[in-house]
Amino acid sequence: MAGEFELIKRYFEAATGDREDVLLGIGDDCALLQMPPGKVLAVTTDTLVSGRHFEAGVDPESLGHKALAVNLSDLAAMGAEPAWASLALTLPSPDEDWLQAFMHGFAQLARAFDVTLVGGDTTAGPLSVSVTVHGFVDLHLALRRDRAQVGDQLYVSGTLGDAGLALRHQQQAEPHRHLLQARLDRPTPRVALGLALRGISCCAIDVSDGLGADLGHICERSDVGARIAVEQLPLSAAVRRYVAQTDDWLLPLTAGDDYELLFTVPKAQQAALERKLADLHVPVSPIGSIVAANEGLEALRPDGTCIKGMGKGYDHFRA
Amino acid sequence: MAGEFELIKRYFEAATGDREDVLLGIGDDCALLQMPPGKVLAVTTDTLVSGRHFEAGVDPESLGHKALAVNLSDLAAMGAEPAWASLALTLPSPDEDWLQAFMHGFAQLARAFDVTLVGGDTTAGPLSVSVTVHGFVDLHLALRRDRAQVGDQLYVSGTLGDAGLALRHQQQAEPHRHLLQARLDRPTPRVALGLALRGISCCAIDVSDGLGADLGHICERSDVGARIAVEQLPLSAAVRRYVAQTDDWLLPLTAGDDYELLFTVPKAQQAALERKLADLHVPVSPIGSIVAANEGLEALRPDGTCIKGMGKGYDHFRA
Repeated sequence: MAGEFELIKRYFEAATGDREDVLLGIGDDCALLQMPPGKVLAVTTDTLVSGRHFEAGVDPESLGHKALAVNLSDLAAMGAEPAWASLALTLPSPDEDWLQAFMHGFAQLARAFDVTLVGGDTTAGPLSVSVTVHGFVDLHLALRRDRAQVGDQLYVSGTLGDAGLALRHQQQAEPHRHLLQARLDRPTPRVALGLALRGISCCAIDVSDGLGADLGHICERSDVGARIAVEQLPLSAAVRRYVAQTDDWLLPLTAGDDYELLFTVPKAQQAALERKLADLHVPVSPIGSIVAANEGLEALRPDGTCIKGMGKGYDHFRA
Repeated sequence: MAGEFELIKRYFEAATGDREDVLLGIGDDCALLQMPPGKVLAVTTDTLVSGRHFEAGVDPESLGHKALAVNLSDLAAMGAEPAWASLALTLPSPDEDWLQAFMHGFAQLARAFDVTLVGGDTTAGPLSVSVTVHGFVDLHLALRRDRAQVGDQLYVSGTLGDAGLALRHQQQAEPHRHLLQARLDRPTPRVALGLALRGISCCAIDVSDGLGADLGHICERSDVGARIAVEQLPLSAAVRRYVAQTDDWLLPLTAGDDYELLFTVPKAQQAALERKLADLHVPVSPIGSIVAANEGLEALRPDGTCIKGMGKGYDHFRA
């Protein structure tokens, strides 16, 4: 059995890239990193804990992917360009096969986004993964939660509720269950979309807690309300069938873990958005609009009736 | 019982300072941070896990202090000026008293070093704390592990083995046991010393794994060896008595958790070091010197005999 230091060296080094702005990488007390001039640093941290965010028997490669993906999703929601990651990994025993698969999933996604692992800490204990990522953004182009304006159009990327449906284990007889499971296990961070939105949108968030909860964050921080037209929500075939059978709109409205981007666009920028999207190959759907704060946050059926209970997203201590 | 988002808001905000370089703090997908021109970013991550680094019933205020202190110690060992921290906190239940005490310990140390908490993640699960800190350093003044040179003098700050003696619970009848316990629970990051060493030393590490293991890191990275004269090791009265009674030099040579700085100084800089230290009020002791790699890493008694077993530091998967 290899000691900790050897393990770290062998597997973490698999995720180091060749970025020139990494002046000193893994192996010293700190990494030393060179910021590009004129940009500001965007930083975010997300933790995945066994039994809470994933089952103990999770596929380690998927876990390595997801631990980085959920963090890159936060950079995407800021319109930031990914650069560096730190990894704090706590695991019950130094299982080399497990660690190799985990780092393979992590490193593959890191390479896809030119992210270098610059540091980390491996500890023995109950399985959990905490990642901090760093990226760059022009300050005046950052996509902030507090920048929505009354009259803005509301958009979301991809489809909603897939990860939630996978979690409910109700898709056993579902022909698309592998697709749903992949949406839960290996979310795609919408980095290219976040970068494309700079100058077109100034307000975005990633849908991690659920559409209602995350839109609620925008409304609270921007002091606005929002109207969603549920028939406009982008749904996969599986979720569309589920909703048709159950009338349970709360699945796409409140399930988390989709990691799509939710963003606002002023009317004057809608033509520019359409031009950008033509080159991007990321599906984006208009789902409603920003209204005054006193109108609240509502999701409406075509007949004008309101879906109750949308505001409750995922709460880590209540779920 | 308050929900997660309220908890985060209430307690994390207690640790936000008023740094002007924090352009956007807690509450968005990312923090936005302004680097000072001409400096490079120093980043490090350390995790403390219940049952491994501390007992489950640990005083939460001490834990908040220590979780930040061990990270600031890594910045100190780089000669970096602390600036920003992210906190990933996993705890079994949202106990408000516990969280308040924890954040009090964290925030008090943060304020002392002008560190702002810029982000974090709170999750339900087995107690663990992962902190990432960011600081600034001039690239050519950074204290690196790979910069020791044959002939350099070797120094260490403070005293060694206090935290290790506290951990052994052998100090029940020890008049200084509160002092020892404080050294274990509330280490002092040697930030001022790290900053003072810029331009005088170019090689440092903090003693977290034990003097032998951490000096081993310097030797490996710098391709050198080292000689320690054990009678020169700085010891507290309690450790001095312990060693006199047991002849167990491995305590000060291998026990971790002291978070003192170990650094090298070329002979030409020793006068400059002494001038700096006169203003600093941090005890610093010469303990040996850097030798050629083929002479290895040895700790010698005054009679010239070698202490065996010094190379084995703390290994998280072996301990």
